[in-house]
Amino acid sequence: MTAVTPAHAAHHPADILARAREVVDPILREAVDSLPEPLCRMAGYHFGWWDERGRPVGGRPGKMLRSGLAISACAACGGPPRAAGPAAAAVELVHNFTLVHDDVMDRDVTRRGRPAVWSVWGIADAVLLGDALHALATEVLATRLPRTAAGVAVRRLENTVVELCRGQHEDCRAESAGRTRIADCERIAMGKTGALMGCACALGALCAGAGVAAVATADRFGRELGLAYQLTDDLLGIWGDPEAAGKPPGDLARRKRSMPVVVALLSDTAAATELGDLYRDADRPLSPHDIERAARLVTEAGGRDATRRRAERRIRAALRALPSGAGSADLRALVRLVSERNR
Amino acid sequence: MTAVTPAHAAHHPADILARAREVVDPILREAVDSLPEPLCRMAGYHFGWWDERGRPVGGRPGKMLRSGLAISACAACGGPPRAAGPAAAAVELVHNFTLVHDDVMDRDVTRRGRPAVWSVWGIADAVLLGDALHALATEVLATRLPRTAAGVAVRRLENTVVELCRGQHEDCRAESAGRTRIADCERIAMGKTGALMGCACALGALCAGAGVAAVATADRFGRELGLAYQLTDDLLGIWGDPEAAGKPPGDLARRKRSMPVVVALLSDTAAATELGDLYRDADRPLSPHDIERAARLVTEAGGRDATRRRAERRIRAALRALPSGAGSADLRALVRLVSERNR
Repeated sequence: MTAVTPAHAAHHPADILARAREVVDPILREAVDSLPEPLCRMAGYHFGWWDERGRPVGGRPGKMLRSGLAISACAACGGPPRAAGPAAAAVELVHNFTLVHDDVMDRDVTRRGRPAVWSVWGIADAVLLGDALHALATEVLATRLPRTAAGVAVRRLENTVVELCRGQHEDCRAESAGRTRIADCERIAMGKTGALMGCACALGALCAGAGVAAVATADRFGRELGLAYQLTDDLLGIWGDPEAAGKPPGDLARRKRSMPVVVALLSDTAAATELGDLYRDADRPLSPHDIERAARLVTEAGGRDATRRRAERRIRAALRALPSGAGSADLRALVRLVSERNR
Repeated sequence: MTAVTPAHAAHHPADILARAREVVDPILREAVDSLPEPLCRMAGYHFGWWDERGRPVGGRPGKMLRSGLAISACAACGGPPRAAGPAAAAVELVHNFTLVHDDVMDRDVTRRGRPAVWSVWGIADAVLLGDALHALATEVLATRLPRTAAGVAVRRLENTVVELCRGQHEDCRAESAGRTRIADCERIAMGKTGALMGCACALGALCAGAGVAAVATADRFGRELGLAYQLTDDLLGIWGDPEAAGKPPGDLARRKRSMPVVVALLSDTAAATELGDLYRDADRPLSPHDIERAARLVTEAGGRDATRRRAERRIRAALRALPSGAGSADLRALVRLVSERNR
């Protein structure tokens, strides 16, 4: 017996994300076009559409995973994919506003294989661009959603922004604190990644006209998936392929206390002691040899395997939150994408 | 013949602002209380309620002028003052979000006579606090306004945020640019101050159920008043009373190209040439003696008088936008407050 497949289901992750881009791109471009210069040009640069002088480039755009989640969650709740376009665009705008601000705070000079906005235009303009993208996100919801959904959607999005701020604050603090616990890592991951993926799915469900319970389930699904995504990110931040990511994995060089490292440091092993020594003296830069050794120590102390297992657990939890049936086939495909991601 | 005065009109600027605080404070406090730590404590510190450890202080809170405008504009359009509470709180939150971010960009260490947020908690947390206050502003509108008004209000507020970003960008650029024109000064003032005061009045009118034309008129009134406010600010930035302002006037020390300076530099006078020499070498700090001399040169070159006249012109334009009659008595009182302000 073959499951009945709705005509608008895409099923292959690449197709799902391509469809998301098709729905979201025009909304994003119209929003960005409404910005005054130089904010407009900076936004187009950040989104990978243009170079820093505003000329079109075939850059490496964002993955549009959050858009794909919003649109697929809408479809899973019986709505037409396009109904979730404004929600997807708003989530994408919030995601990018936080990236622009995070790069300022973390002094990350590279984003998607190119100089980060602040390292081209300076800190002041980067802060302003983030603020403007945040404003566009809410405006898109307020302007394009039906009145019955707009208020609830704006409220949910802004609650999520506050959660993202909390996550980023705790992430910055963990970097400078001497000791991080596993629970801290999970709370930071929920704030930085889980919250917005949950919001994407919840808004998608909302755009399909889903009720309170279905919206809450979509949120839970997205949060579990987001946690899995972040844990995989932590693995890629140590063992990722520089080609695929557009930058070399840099978490160890920055002595980041990500999940694999925290698990390793808390283990009762000789590797943990040695790793602790490497992490202690924050002022001394780690040599390429040190970084290689640190990665080996994290593996030896069990940090790599434990993080993989935690990610798999979150993936299973996400799948459990999904209703069975063909409607959620696209969401299942995106779960597969996350569990197999390499960038 | 005595004009009929609505029961809720206050008429004295101090009473109007006190009433605004009464309406807005509970909404602001509930919004701030919803923030996670340390954002909650930072917000209360910034609003002048608490010290940096969260203990209540009798600080110098903001003037609440924007709140007063929103509530008085609502009254002028026949609405009950409380109806504009959420709009007033949202505008106050946006105003304070931009202050927190502006202080980061301008590296201003003092705000309302106390260390600015970033100089207590650092740049990263200050950026996050601004982002969270921005989120709260929209959330207050989306949650507390009737559905019919919320969408339009959110849209207007976010358009204003983009205009504020544009104004701040141009202000930063003018500081570093060699030459600023009078039109640049006015555009910056409109972006940084006029836009949000216009928005406050427009949202107040909207909360009274006013139609499109009345909302547009309220916006125009607020923008003219905002320009007058900013021009007076430029005068206080050179000749202001340190006691009243909570900090010494610092525009000349920073070689700011505010309206009095720009007018003076563009005049065909010996004072202009001398002032130009003082402003040229940006790396050499100005001595107290230089600053005093610069202030005298700006006066001699006509910058002080011309700025006063421009401010008076904007005040008259604001008054022309007001309907006659008792309903707008509170707005007239606030115009008086702006035209006589000394801090």
